[in-house]
Amino acid sequence: MSAETRLMVAESASSMEEPSAAWLARARSHLDSLTKPLGSLGRLEDVAARMVSIQQERSAEPLRKSVYVFAADHGVTAEGVSAYPSEVTRQMVLNFLRGGAAVNVLARLHDVEMTVVDVGVDADFAGADGMLHRKVCRGTRNMLHDAAMSEEEMLQAISVGVELAGDAKAKGYALVGAGEMGIGNTTAASAITAVLTRKPVAMVTGKGTGVGATALARKQEVIEAAIERHFPVLNGDMPADPFDILCCVGGLEIAAMVGLILGAAREGIAVVVDGFISTAAAAIAYAVEPRVQGYLFAGHLSEEPGHKALLEFLDLQPILTLGMRLGEGSGAVLAMPVIDAAMAIYNQMATFASAGVSEAKP
Amino acid sequence: MSAETRLMVAESASSMEEPSAAWLARARSHLDSLTKPLGSLGRLEDVAARMVSIQQERSAEPLRKSVYVFAADHGVTAEGVSAYPSEVTRQMVLNFLRGGAAVNVLARLHDVEMTVVDVGVDADFAGADGMLHRKVCRGTRNMLHDAAMSEEEMLQAISVGVELAGDAKAKGYALVGAGEMGIGNTTAASAITAVLTRKPVAMVTGKGTGVGATALARKQEVIEAAIERHFPVLNGDMPADPFDILCCVGGLEIAAMVGLILGAAREGIAVVVDGFISTAAAAIAYAVEPRVQGYLFAGHLSEEPGHKALLEFLDLQPILTLGMRLGEGSGAVLAMPVIDAAMAIYNQMATFASAGVSEAKP
Repeated sequence: MSAETRLMVAESASSMEEPSAAWLARARSHLDSLTKPLGSLGRLEDVAARMVSIQQERSAEPLRKSVYVFAADHGVTAEGVSAYPSEVTRQMVLNFLRGGAAVNVLARLHDVEMTVVDVGVDADFAGADGMLHRKVCRGTRNMLHDAAMSEEEMLQAISVGVELAGDAKAKGYALVGAGEMGIGNTTAASAITAVLTRKPVAMVTGKGTGVGATALARKQEVIEAAIERHFPVLNGDMPADPFDILCCVGGLEIAAMVGLILGAAREGIAVVVDGFISTAAAAIAYAVEPRVQGYLFAGHLSEEPGHKALLEFLDLQPILTLGMRLGEGSGAVLAMPVIDAAMAIYNQMATFASAGVSEAKP
Repeated sequence: MSAETRLMVAESASSMEEPSAAWLARARSHLDSLTKPLGSLGRLEDVAARMVSIQQERSAEPLRKSVYVFAADHGVTAEGVSAYPSEVTRQMVLNFLRGGAAVNVLARLHDVEMTVVDVGVDADFAGADGMLHRKVCRGTRNMLHDAAMSEEEMLQAISVGVELAGDAKAKGYALVGAGEMGIGNTTAASAITAVLTRKPVAMVTGKGTGVGATALARKQEVIEAAIERHFPVLNGDMPADPFDILCCVGGLEIAAMVGLILGAAREGIAVVVDGFISTAAAAIAYAVEPRVQGYLFAGHLSEEPGHKALLEFLDLQPILTLGMRLGEGSGAVLAMPVIDAAMAIYNQMATFASAGVSEAKP
C-alpha cells in the first residue's frame, strides 16, 4: 500500500468512532419498557437499538434515505464469465435514468432518493441527465492478466464514494444504501470473498446473473487463476492487504462503495448493504477499518453462495431472506421499511406505565 | 358438526374459487419479460404472481390494506399458562384504541387501516369509541374442563369475521391482515396445532408471551389433558373435524379469524396471516376448505415453535423471519410493504423490449 493510500485511509477512517455503547444500552432499556412482552419484536428490536446507537440524540423518524447505484464494467467479461453481454451495463444505466429498473420502482415506493453514478462504464454518457459523471476509466482490466485497477484508479473511485458520503451528510440522510450495476462483477466479488475469507473458490462462486454449468466452471477457473496470479503466497496467518485485493481483483463500482461505506461511517450515517457485490465492498471496508461494522445493516441474504460467507465475516444478520440475486441496491431498498418500522416502534409505542398495562408476573 | 354449521360452511366456502391458474401463468410470463435476470427477484416474484392470480384483471397498486385485530379472553388462563394476567387483554384493547401498541405504529407507518374488534373480552367496553362491539361472551370456558365454546358461540364469532370480510370487499381492500389479542391464546393455538398436525404437544408448545420452565411444563400438561379429554380417539387416518377442534380448544378471536379468512377468500381478497395464533385460524379454515390456501400469505415466521408446523401444514413460505412473537397482526402488517413492493415491481418495471436491454446469451 502506497503512502498516498495510507493517507487516504487515515483521512477516511482515523476519525471514525464506534456507535455509542451507552446509547445502545439506553435503547435496549427503552425497548423493554414498551407495551409488548420482553424481546417479542425480535430482530426489529436489534435494528432499532443499533440505529439509535448510531444516531444518538439525533434519533428521529421518518428516516431520510438514499441509495447510490455505482456502475462500472469489468475486463474479466472477456473470459465468458457472465450470462449477459457487457453492453448491458450501459443499457441498464439508461434504464435506471428512465426509472424502469427494479431499484427505481422500490426506491419510489419506499421514499428513497436514488443517485446513479458512472464510475467506470465502457460507454460515453456525455450529456446524459440525472446521473453523476464520475468515470475513472472505461472499466477494469482483465484480472486474469493484469491488476483490475491501478492504485490511482482505485483511489479515484474510492474518493467518489467518500464524496457522496459527505454529500449525504450535508443533505441529512440518516440511512444510505450501497448498490451497483456491472456485468461481470460477481466474478470480482467471488475473488474478493475467496481471498478475504480463505474459503474455497468453488464454495463462494455462484451463477451470478444465471450462467450455465460450463460457464460456471470457467468462472471458477478464471477466479482461481487470478488469485494464483495476484496472491501466490496467501497463508492463514497473514491476511492480504484489503487495498491490494481491491486493486487486483476488484472493480471500480466496488471501490466506490468502499469509499461510500468508510465515508458514511465516519459521518455517523448508517449503511444498508445490498447483496453479494455490495457486501464484498463492505468486507473490504471492514478489513481496512473494523469500526465500520457498527454502521452496517445487511439488507438481505442473496442467493449467491458467497454472500453468506461475507455476512459471517462481517458478523451481520440479514434483514430479509427472499432468495433475491439482482443487485442494483434492490435488497437494500426493500429492507429499508423494516428499519423505518423499527424506529417508529422505538419512538411511538406506549410504555407499560403510560398505557396502564400490567407487566409480566414475576 | 351440526346442520347449522354445515350451512354456514356451505355459504362461506361453496362459492369459493381457487385463484386463477391462467393469471398465475400470465403473471410468471410477464415477470420473465422484465429487465432483470430470470427469477432474480426470488420470492418477491412468487408473491407478485400469487397476488395477480388472486386479483386478476383488478390488479393494481397501491394496494388498499386493512388489518383486523380480534380480542378475546381464555378460560384456560385459570391454569396459570400465561406470563401475563388475563386483564392485559382489556388493557391492550385500550392501548390499541389510543394508538400505542406495536400494531398501531406499524399500521400507521405502512398505510394500513386498522379495526379493533371485541369478540369476547372479559370486560365491559360499552361506550368505547373506535372499536367494533361484537362480544359473543366474556371469554371462553377452561378447555381443561369444558369445551371452550358452544357451537352457537363459535358460529357467532365466525360470522363476525365473515361480516368483516364482506365489509372489506365493500370498502375495496385488496389485502387484509388477521391479528389478535388474547392472554392465553398460544395455549389454544398449540392445542389446535397438535390436533391438526398430529405433532407432539411438546414440539408445538412454546413460551408464548414468555413463561418460565415450570409454567411451560404446566402449559404442556394442560394442553395434553385438554386434548385427551376432547379427542380421546385421535388416530392418523381420521382427521378431527376442524369445527370440533375450534369449539373444544379454540378461542373466540380464533373463530373470528377463521370467518375472516373464509370470507375474504370467497370475496377474492388476499389475507396476510400473522404469527402462531393467526396461522392456527388459517389452518382451521384450510381444513374446512382447502381452496383458501391460494389466498393466504404468511407474513412472518414466529419464534413460537408450533408456527413452523402450521406453515408446513398450509404449505406457506413466510415473507419475513425476524424472530418476532408478538401477535396483534404486527408481523402481517410488517410484511405488507414487501407485497406492495412485489406489485409495484410487477406493474412498473420496464421490459427488456421497452428498455432496449439485451437478454441473456443463449
